[in-house]
Amino acid sequence: MLNIIKGHLHRYTLIIIMILFTFLANDKHSMGDEGNIIPMKYQKAKLDNGLSIILVEHHELPVVAIELLVRAGSVHDPQEKQGLANIVAQLLREGTRSKDSLEISEEIDFIGGTLSADSEYDSTSVTATALVKHFKSILDLLSEVARFPTFKTKDIEFQREKTLTSILREKDNKRAIASRHFSEMLYGIHPYAHPSIGTLEGLKAITRKEIIQFHKNHYLPNNSILTVVGDIEPSNILAVIKKTFGDWKEGNVHKPTLPLMPKIVNYRIRLVDKPDLTQTEICIGHLGIRRNNPDYFSLMLLNYILGRGPTSRLYTEIRVERGLSYGVKSQFDARILRGPFYIRTYSKNETAIETLRLVLDELKKLKAGGITKEELDSAKSYYIGHFPLSLETPAQIASKIIEQEFYGLPEDYLEKYLENIKAVSREDVNRAIEGLIDPENLVIVLVSKAEDILKEAKTLGEVELKGL
Amino acid sequence: MLNIIKGHLHRYTLIIIMILFTFLANDKHSMGDEGNIIPMKYQKAKLDNGLSIILVEHHELPVVAIELLVRAGSVHDPQEKQGLANIVAQLLREGTRSKDSLEISEEIDFIGGTLSADSEYDSTSVTATALVKHFKSILDLLSEVARFPTFKTKDIEFQREKTLTSILREKDNKRAIASRHFSEMLYGIHPYAHPSIGTLEGLKAITRKEIIQFHKNHYLPNNSILTVVGDIEPSNILAVIKKTFGDWKEGNVHKPTLPLMPKIVNYRIRLVDKPDLTQTEICIGHLGIRRNNPDYFSLMLLNYILGRGPTSRLYTEIRVERGLSYGVKSQFDARILRGPFYIRTYSKNETAIETLRLVLDELKKLKAGGITKEELDSAKSYYIGHFPLSLETPAQIASKIIEQEFYGLPEDYLEKYLENIKAVSREDVNRAIEGLIDPENLVIVLVSKAEDILKEAKTLGEVELKGL
Repeated sequence: MLNIIKGHLHRYTLIIIMILFTFLANDKHSMGDEGNIIPMKYQKAKLDNGLSIILVEHHELPVVAIELLVRAGSVHDPQEKQGLANIVAQLLREGTRSKDSLEISEEIDFIGGTLSADSEYDSTSVTATALVKHFKSILDLLSEVARFPTFKTKDIEFQREKTLTSILREKDNKRAIASRHFSEMLYGIHPYAHPSIGTLEGLKAITRKEIIQFHKNHYLPNNSILTVVGDIEPSNILAVIKKTFGDWKEGNVHKPTLPLMPKIVNYRIRLVDKPDLTQTEICIGHLGIRRNNPDYFSLMLLNYILGRGPTSRLYTEIRVERGLSYGVKSQFDARILRGPFYIRTYSKNETAIETLRLVLDELKKLKAGGITKEELDSAKSYYIGHFPLSLETPAQIASKIIEQEFYGLPEDYLEKYLENIKAVSREDVNRAIEGLIDPENLVIVLVSKAEDILKEAKTLGEVELKGL
Repeated sequence: MLNIIKGHLHRYTLIIIMILFTFLANDKHSMGDEGNIIPMKYQKAKLDNGLSIILVEHHELPVVAIELLVRAGSVHDPQEKQGLANIVAQLLREGTRSKDSLEISEEIDFIGGTLSADSEYDSTSVTATALVKHFKSILDLLSEVARFPTFKTKDIEFQREKTLTSILREKDNKRAIASRHFSEMLYGIHPYAHPSIGTLEGLKAITRKEIIQFHKNHYLPNNSILTVVGDIEPSNILAVIKKTFGDWKEGNVHKPTLPLMPKIVNYRIRLVDKPDLTQTEICIGHLGIRRNNPDYFSLMLLNYILGRGPTSRLYTEIRVERGLSYGVKSQFDARILRGPFYIRTYSKNETAIETLRLVLDELKKLKAGGITKEELDSAKSYYIGHFPLSLETPAQIASKIIEQEFYGLPEDYLEKYLENIKAVSREDVNRAIEGLIDPENLVIVLVSKAEDILKEAKTLGEVELKGL
């Protein structure tokens, strides 16, 4: 089912690597009985300036989704300028060399499309959707905002104020407070310690010059991936892309020197005092994995069993059996570098430490006993059934395809997705648990009315008491 | 393009009205140049017990989306039991005659599907998605939760507590506070006055008996519509539906006697005091339209011009020109009965009344001068381009199709959607403005630190001062 065609299309002076395949299509042998996934034609190319291109045909509707991913995220924020990558992304749509914010909005609205930019820890994405017949217009606009923003002083001040307001508003949000303290403790001076949106101090310190420089350093074709998914004919599209992005000059990619992540020994417990709370917010965890970890599928299945959804161990124990909380969830945030593994829940102040102890017990039980065959089977069954539901729209497909490229996952990652899930054995999961899950060395954050729970919290270990 | 086939399929003892058509497909004449919308095969039927059925073929992925809409919403809540319809909906998944909450979750997870229930003002929807090969299983489950919930006392208490907590949490949310007061003033003793989720007093007063009775009164086949969209073959699906829902007993549909909506004369201004606020939340409006109002398209286009998105009059004036707010938005919530028309924005306390005055001025200008041809063209252009982007997934299609049926829109509503938009003239919009928009008689809600703005607010008229 997999044909690889290599060649040079001199007409476009492109180095072209074309990988056309129909994946997961009607192959009962490799698919077992879980139904057919749609065939998807997929093609890769690279412009001379280093821009990686992925094109996917998806013909159900006359629409197209575009994503330009730039390897520039909050991990590239200087220590004193937290929020830099985010404010750069937010400013892209505010004005370019030839269009102001209103003109950009008018052009998008005129074709009934969408265009937005968002930055995360490791990257920034500019995404757009439109009818196929407006492909050239929307691509032009996307190129314009990504490559030629002007960063006017008044737009910077507006965006800075807006972001500061968002951060201040988080003071009312228990969960956001817990996350912020958790990341800070887990990552220390590593930039994963601060949220992508930035910090009050960081945002206030950012200058226009630094914004311009950040854009110049990171928004480079050889630091970016462009994906187009939709009702397209790849060779036509490629010509348009070449015309639009061919003159984008490559440059030196700035890789930051990152500090080490701290080592957590025993429990590091922090109690954040918010005296108006009657419910305690709890966040517990340790370092997790890189996105390209070979145990990714094992840990995804493990996480399902431990704390994803209403059939998980944690939910059954804490919500169903004991009624201590309305919700409990575990999660791996897999990033370019090691993202966090964490469990979040909440309970009344009176039962907060009891709930926390139950979570710790579940982690210990998992570490000591591993998982059962039945648990693994039902986790697999969930993902096998659910996978196609996550690939319904061109924008969803674009995001999955770009994920594969960005994290350096195998070329056949999506093609073999279901096979990979099925191949995971109980031993694989238990080995992954053995290597990663560590119930003895944890960051524990409690956001609560301190006087309600401090004494009981101290039975677990030393408690660092903090204000908001 | 439209074939109507009528007949009786005695094999299923169904009264079948089959309407098969390929809509918006390749019809350049009626479509102009805005691209082809996918062809969609669409079929209607009705079971003997009165259940309306709509089936849509959508073959891109091997998935299926199901929506069962029951005409039972918070508009059916008794005055003293606000939140009844919602708690009934929330309890459906908590346990049935043969399955407890955990078993239901396990079954859904086992097939990797989704199943949820949500209630709004006029209706409750139970929605599900799954792979097509699990259609029978997910339909069985959907039928089980919709028809045979047991409403155990412990589940009721859990759900009641959870909902009360959500309502209490709204106290931190300025926008939710403004909405609540706005609806209360606009609708008086009409049930649209309270949010679907209910009120603290209402929720506390609800008994198990009332929950059971509400379900019995409203969850009836002759009060419901079932829509299935996906990679299906209608006649097979119809047989399965008949087997699953054929024994659902019809009953008398309980239509509530609803009080009249109050008449608002002049400005009715309410200032809600929240002393910690530095930003004032503003909500202004009056009664809007029923969903089946023949001027729906005119008003949709008008709303775009007035306050939808970054090119609208309000946004340009308040955000772009004056920098008084980060956001401003106008909206029509079109319901079975007249929903609200409202404008929402916020500004620093010092500039709140100035911002409010600008909004009022824009409404007056609109009423006096109407819209321009250029504004209308760009609004049309937006919706023409955007429509296909709102029909990407089976679940989106199901929701549009059920909307058409539920609100009694014309049979060719979706088919003629783009044509209808294009047919709207400047005169149509201006006539709709003349008939509906009323800048002299408005509900105005301000949520703010009262002492900061009270004096200035009084320059607009009498101000009712309220606590949270």
